Amino acid sequence: MRIDIITVLPEMLEGFVNESILARAQKKGLAEIHLHNLRDYTTDKWRRVDDYPYGGFAGMVMQCEPIDRAISALKAERNYDEVIFTSPDGEQFNQHVANDLSMLENIIILCGHYKGIDQRVRDHLITREISIGDYVLTGGELAAAVMADAIVRVVPGVIGDEQSALSDCFQDDMLSAPIYTRPADYKGWKVPDILLSGNEAKIKEWEMDQAMERTRRLRPDLLK
Amino acid sequence: MRIDIITVLPEMLEGFVNESILARAQKKGLAEIHLHNLRDYTTDKWRRVDDYPYGGFAGMVMQCEPIDRAISALKAERNYDEVIFTSPDGEQFNQHVANDLSMLENIIILCGHYKGIDQRVRDHLITREISIGDYVLTGGELAAAVMADAIVRVVPGVIGDEQSALSDCFQDDMLSAPIYTRPADYKGWKVPDILLSGNEAKIKEWEMDQAMERTRRLRPDLLK
Repeated sequence: MRIDIITVLPEMLEGFVNESILARAQKKGLAEIHLHNLRDYTTDKWRRVDDYPYGGFAGMVMQCEPIDRAISALKAERNYDEVIFTSPDGEQFNQHVANDLSMLENIIILCGHYKGIDQRVRDHLITREISIGDYVLTGGELAAAVMADAIVRVVPGVIGDEQSALSDCFQDDMLSAPIYTRPADYKGWKVPDILLSGNEAKIKEWEMDQAMERTRRLRPDLLK
Repeated sequence: MRIDIITVLPEMLEGFVNESILARAQKKGLAEIHLHNLRDYTTDKWRRVDDYPYGGFAGMVMQCEPIDRAISALKAERNYDEVIFTSPDGEQFNQHVANDLSMLENIIILCGHYKGIDQRVRDHLITREISIGDYVLTGGELAAAVMADAIVRVVPGVIGDEQSALSDCFQDDMLSAPIYTRPADYKGWKVPDILLSGNEAKIKEWEMDQAMERTRRLRPDLLK
């Protein structure tokens, strides 16, 4: 799949794209991530992308035109399944959304910045608004990075051991069971005996029980 | 405030720390962000931090010892208010949590990676487990970045125009009203007349109505 990220701070995302799972997925030919500097789509010599809001409110607002030009340029090259805007008031991103988006071919993610973007962009150019959580970030760059990471890692073949993604938290609307590794005794903190027993059936049962107990205690809402 | 981030991938976070609001906050002397490579706290020549899980499960698990050594080294230097682990099954991060954490002096954020960390670390060394959302990321690095951004930007003085943070989404458990900037007419897409009226009282009223209408329609849960 291909993800095009439009941002005013591509340098904030470069380290992430080159060091993370995204780099691995790209090397394997399973994903393409392209960063686009919104300022490349401005027409004035100051490469300005924002202006004061109408109504005398605080903060700066990202203007329609550079965003329209950036999205149009991408759309002229290929079809896009979704043009996503990262916004705290969008649809909640979760594992189901990540799984769904991982099956698309081409998506654009537009990162908001400053106080936000002109509402007309949202009304006319964006097909889907997604929030990674109920908090405000300085810009949509981290939200785009979070989405790209969660989406790309479930593209088949990206994670070496596929079993590893299938047994993740949330894949069955359940939290994961606790996990342990060597040593069996660290400073008197011990691994549960059952995990050292070698009894596969009992261990599988223990894992299910633990996952269910933990989900009931911490996230009963997931079981509904 | 000071945030110490313990990670196996400091290079993934460097761009973010140096390009974002965190850089600005550090320049102003309002925040300190320190990245620590967990591998610096290993004792073997392979700088190994993970091992196979007990019980025959898939994936790799981060071991107790390097994490214990890293946290102990930091604690020997100063007191920490919280030792946070980023985990999808933790308490949900939201604007209230961000505001609360922004009032602390020193916090550690431990980034999980691979399949997760040995449960004994969570039982004995971590004081708070926080999730940025119901999805699985390749590692806790992006979660730590998201938390650091949301926390630091509400530290007083970090954002130039303080009004700007106070009028954010979620600060009153409300979504924000739509915003617009020039031009008033872009390709026939028009700014609402009221915003061009210059009538401050009416504009304020419109903003409140819009925020309420949007919250009711998109996130009625926030109003409870």
